[in-house]
Amino acid sequence: MLNIVGVGICEGQITERASKLISQAEIVFGSRRALKLASKFITGEFFEISKFEERTYREIEALAEEKNVVVLSTGDPMVSGLGTKLKGNVEPGISSVQMALARLKEDLCNTIVIDAHAKKFEELELIDKRNLLILADRNFDLSAFGKRKVAVLEDICGRERFLVGKADELRISSDYSIIFVWK
Amino acid sequence: MLNIVGVGICEGQITERASKLISQAEIVFGSRRALKLASKFITGEFFEISKFEERTYREIEALAEEKNVVVLSTGDPMVSGLGTKLKGNVEPGISSVQMALARLKEDLCNTIVIDAHAKKFEELELIDKRNLLILADRNFDLSAFGKRKVAVLEDICGRERFLVGKADELRISSDYSIIFVWK
Repeated sequence: MLNIVGVGICEGQITERASKLISQAEIVFGSRRALKLASKFITGEFFEISKFEERTYREIEALAEEKNVVVLSTGDPMVSGLGTKLKGNVEPGISSVQMALARLKEDLCNTIVIDAHAKKFEELELIDKRNLLILADRNFDLSAFGKRKVAVLEDICGRERFLVGKADELRISSDYSIIFVWK
Repeated sequence: MLNIVGVGICEGQITERASKLISQAEIVFGSRRALKLASKFITGEFFEISKFEERTYREIEALAEEKNVVVLSTGDPMVSGLGTKLKGNVEPGISSVQMALARLKEDLCNTIVIDAHAKKFEELELIDKRNLLILADRNFDLSAFGKRKVAVLEDICGRERFLVGKADELRISSDYSIIFVWK
């Protein structure tokens, strides 16, 4: 049995359902951060995933044929997460996207979420359709948005930084940043 | 003090942070369903909101100037929820959008979320850009998507129904439906 369980991104964001799945697991896998967030619920063995790659995923799936295995996913498994990479049941968690929308008081139904973290940003034309919420690292080039109003949120639940201004006047300084661009 | 707190859509989806905010509140407001989901955490007074309208929201905001008030929001307050309607701090919850993406194993970053619940669907052209996830009621006309592959999820966490087929061959029978249309 394989459950891919979202553990949120801040302390205390694990749901009751998620905590039960974690505490019932014989083996728990996760990043160091995910294991820390879930630590008080883990009763079985646990292992840090060091390499997030195909081979690791197939090994975990094989193990889950015989054991009750949980793979932790920081945030939500279906937001640029492990849910599409592993075969198994997905239990949702609170994502950084939700935290950002909560801070900004903007609705997901007026927004398009884009993953530009460690990858090229190729959907600039969507800005004509809706607000954009972009998961980004420090290499992201804000100048593409010119004089538009943007917000940058960095290290949510950590040493949080929240800036609002014109795109061409702001800089990103964290590899865990969210950029919100108003249409 | 006013906290708008997401309580998820199924039993057991309330986070630790949300449960603390609810239990510390002197007064809790919510729909019947939201109050039921949160009932075991409520220690103060509680009132069912019967009319979700401006006047109610302003009355709650006025009360929150003197009391510790929580307004419950089923799902997440920033997914077609109360987060944009009330002034206050938003605590995220698990939304039906997340439940649907988990079932379908589809990532939010490849999807556009559209609210067509009790309102007109006007963003058909977005289907050329990405997968669409549409919050819908039984009046939604699936034929707009012709022969495209769609999934219909109804009453998640209730008497759940999950159909996959061609758009022009499926029918919606619940006012709490999610339609997923593959690009």
